[in-house]
Amino acid sequence: MNVTAIQGPGGRWMIPPDCKESMDRTLIGLKGPLKTPIAAGHPSMNLLLRKTFDLYANVRPCVSIEGYKTPYTDVDLVTIRENTEGEYSGIEHIIVDGVVQSIKLITEDASRRIAEYAFEYARNNQRNSVTAVHKANIMRMSDGLFLRKCREVAENFKDVKFTEMYLDTVCLNMVQDPTQFDVLVMPNLYGDILSDLCAGLIGGLGVTPSGNIGANGVAIFESVHGTAPDIAGLDMANPTALLLSAVMMLRHMGMHDYGKKIETACFDTIRDKKVLTGDLGGKSKCSEFTEEICRRVRDMD
Amino acid sequence: MNVTAIQGPGGRWMIPPDCKESMDRTLIGLKGPLKTPIAAGHPSMNLLLRKTFDLYANVRPCVSIEGYKTPYTDVDLVTIRENTEGEYSGIEHIIVDGVVQSIKLITEDASRRIAEYAFEYARNNQRNSVTAVHKANIMRMSDGLFLRKCREVAENFKDVKFTEMYLDTVCLNMVQDPTQFDVLVMPNLYGDILSDLCAGLIGGLGVTPSGNIGANGVAIFESVHGTAPDIAGLDMANPTALLLSAVMMLRHMGMHDYGKKIETACFDTIRDKKVLTGDLGGKSKCSEFTEEICRRVRDMD
Ligand SMILES: CC(C)[C@H](C(=O)O)[C@@H](O)C(=O)O
Ligand SMILES: CC(C)[C@H](C(=O)O)[C@@H](O)C(=O)O
Repeated sequence: MNVTAIQGPGGRWMIPPDCKESMDRTLIGLKGPLKTPIAAGHPSMNLLLRKTFDLYANVRPCVSIEGYKTPYTDVDLVTIRENTEGEYSGIEHIIVDGVVQSIKLITEDASRRIAEYAFEYARNNQRNSVTAVHKANIMRMSDGLFLRKCREVAENFKDVKFTEMYLDTVCLNMVQDPTQFDVLVMPNLYGDILSDLCAGLIGGLGVTPSGNIGANGVAIFESVHGTAPDIAGLDMANPTALLLSAVMMLRHMGMHDYGKKIETACFDTIRDKKVLTGDLGGKSKCSEFTEEICRRVRDMD
Repeated sequence: MNVTAIQGPGGRWMIPPDCKESMDRTLIGLKGPLKTPIAAGHPSMNLLLRKTFDLYANVRPCVSIEGYKTPYTDVDLVTIRENTEGEYSGIEHIIVDGVVQSIKLITEDASRRIAEYAFEYARNNQRNSVTAVHKANIMRMSDGLFLRKCREVAENFKDVKFTEMYLDTVCLNMVQDPTQFDVLVMPNLYGDILSDLCAGLIGGLGVTPSGNIGANGVAIFESVHGTAPDIAGLDMANPTALLLSAVMMLRHMGMHDYGKKIETACFDTIRDKKVLTGDLGGKSKCSEFTEEICRRVRDMD
């Protein structure tokens, strides 16, 4: 379905009723980029969606794309970000004039839940290790709790290697040798940062898919790049991130063969270098790039 | 002077009195790496030093080193990190069992002070631009306040270009093209992350100097890598980060010529590739590497 975010009473953004109804019925959504209003009082629509459907795990696989050159090769990792609390609690106060506090909220339940998700993801996707990313040397109680839950859950997944690492150390090691990482699990803000960093290693948000996963199969898949208003309507956008997000969605729904076909057609098109959008180094329109991928899918049958 | 951190009553780390006395007298310190105890109740000695002497600005220049190959060339930027508050406030609570909050504290005074430091640094070091790094789209009050102060201060430095960017976007752009950045200013935790990320781009903490600057000329310079207990006493460590921190110290004290000589000797030694420690790709001992740098300094006279 095709819906646009709407503004409710007082100008606050809200989820359109037919979108909510559709999600409740199908449990699955595919979402294009949305602009985050920065004005006070306007919650981010992205955050609202994550909250409304309790999409507690943000999953971003980062895999080097053959033919799309970056300083790194063989990146193959997944960031798994706690998506509901932490620094994104939205709780902030003015204590006195000129003194403000924001509250980072970490709970046992959410920490255990995301840790379990990460280990299950690793097990189900033939991945070998999970690294918990934290700053428990500084935020000893909050990140300490998160870390403790990761350690506890690790006990139940003896087939998956568990390591823990400071966020700053991960960032440093990541740009030096990303191939050492596999599945990474972390609180909300650290995931925001690391997922973008890792996307940068393989070519940016234009080629990186994302999934927000909730309980009982609920999920919204999305491209996480901006809305690029400067090229709106010019048939120039690169649809790869949205397409690969749709591939993640198909896999999530158990339609692995369809997912595989579209993914292969997309990667083959990029490797082939003949029909590419501008940001991928080519001169083709969005529609030409898409048609080339569709052609390859058709040829597979 | 040469002092070791000591433990006071209750096993808490404290700053040795003669170190405190020396700092009060000379205003300047040069510090080797310290281990951060992770156990609850033990504050980090690094944090204690920053707090005790109100070292509000953490300054880390990241400059590509000729002859030391990384995936990046021509990196030349400086991260300026607010060093006293933010996510490092140390204020944490257990709300109820399994629910913890950490408080990020942002004040108008500290934000203005670090913004002013960054712009003055840019102006005094022939740098063209300052980028404020934030997540004011999420932490609207706290990062919002930080950002507002940066904007206000920018008004007084019309000769320096001012931009603002989300932390996640900076991370992404940083690994794609670090040459676009110049001076970056940000709250405490973001600085912790970004400074390590940037160090990774130029070869790691073994070659990256750091300075903690306070009011009225007080400053402590330090290498920020770990203590590497595995190679303690083996004459294998790479002294570059500490040496370049000493160079920063000399410049801070107005001894630019001495600083320049040592820096040149160090970079020449690395470019020359003949006498290098193991982590720099060579086979020499720490003492041989150091002696080679001293030899070059002597030859300059
Ligand atoms: C748009 C913004 C609210 C969002 C975030 O900070 O989480 C984005 O950066 C993301 O990673 O999805
Ligand atoms: C050792 C640790 C307390 C410290 C920090 O987190 O600030 C370190 O990572 C740094 O960057 O100096």
